[in-house]
Amino acid sequence: MRILLAGATGTLGKAVHEALRARGHEIVTASRKGSDISVDITEPESIRAMYEKAGRVDAVANAAGWVPWKPLTELGPDDVLAGLRGKAFSQVELVRQGAASAAEDASFTLVTGVLSRDPVLTGSMASLANGAIEAFVRAAAIELPHRQRINVVSPTVFTESMPAYGEIFVGFQPVPVAAAARAYVRSIEGRQTGRVYVVE
Amino acid sequence: MRILLAGATGTLGKAVHEALRARGHEIVTASRKGSDISVDITEPESIRAMYEKAGRVDAVANAAGWVPWKPLTELGPDDVLAGLRGKAFSQVELVRQGAASAAEDASFTLVTGVLSRDPVLTGSMASLANGAIEAFVRAAAIELPHRQRINVVSPTVFTESMPAYGEIFVGFQPVPVAAAARAYVRSIEGRQTGRVYVVE
Repeated sequence: MRILLAGATGTLGKAVHEALRARGHEIVTASRKGSDISVDITEPESIRAMYEKAGRVDAVANAAGWVPWKPLTELGPDDVLAGLRGKAFSQVELVRQGAASAAEDASFTLVTGVLSRDPVLTGSMASLANGAIEAFVRAAAIELPHRQRINVVSPTVFTESMPAYGEIFVGFQPVPVAAAARAYVRSIEGRQTGRVYVVE
Repeated sequence: MRILLAGATGTLGKAVHEALRARGHEIVTASRKGSDISVDITEPESIRAMYEKAGRVDAVANAAGWVPWKPLTELGPDDVLAGLRGKAFSQVELVRQGAASAAEDASFTLVTGVLSRDPVLTGSMASLANGAIEAFVRAAAIELPHRQRINVVSPTVFTESMPAYGEIFVGFQPVPVAAAARAYVRSIEGRQTGRVYVVE
């Protein structure tokens, strides 16, 4: 398959890239910099240009998303809007625009995380965006045109991210990022739709 | 208790008002028009002014929220932003700002709906916003200051709304709006926090 991978340069994106390449797929990478296509997924016009450059693809996988990490009482309204834009609006736009240009049986695989179900201190904007996307995936699954599919991978913290996020996810059992990458392979090569692939 | 009720003039808001009044509470109503306080909950400055006018309250209940209803493929980026702002951002702002001015043991009771778990055609923006708020409530429950609490009432379609929404919720078993209003009473008078009160 020809697969467009957004967020290809991060910890998760690199692992997804490796897992999909190992399965023999052709990967078109996209990210802010350092990929085949430069994209800012918080900007609809940038997403439009990305799809135009990528051409027809059989699958769209996203490993990108940003939210502010702050105590609830220190958040401002701009933080809330930025969190919604950085991980919820951005991923809805990837699907909404991609539905028109991707193959008739294309799949979309988005990313959320454990905080939709199991919150941590300073993580309320991640919870907010993750919950939004998991519910959206269930809804989009019954509305996508043709035979298009959509799923989301919702991993806990990665072993590889514990040096950076270990204090936030204290006491959590991390998983290797390769386990989350395998869930992308299941989503893309399987026939399921509307699924939340929990990786814990 | 002295309770601030936003969205007091809608089908749900009127039922919540009645149920809380029957329990002997003092209700300060807020809505775009026709209430004690005029408020647009999509505007942080309007919410600030509402809390200033309301003074110290023991509970905040919200029955307001708006999202666009359109097929996924007919949504534009402005629809997605409007849906997030109308039912997710607005409710986060009610909590974020209210946490600073409400009583130390105040409760917040928000509203979502069945589409977070069980989607219908044209309802993807409702699913998106509902999923966001249900996950946010779980997160805010562990971060609210003092002994403040937060829950959300997530009802299916109301019997009273079937004339307007019956074609969208075809085949659903509706519930009387009074059943959802009772969940607000449980949230406000109980001691639970982080709960999604499913009313189906």
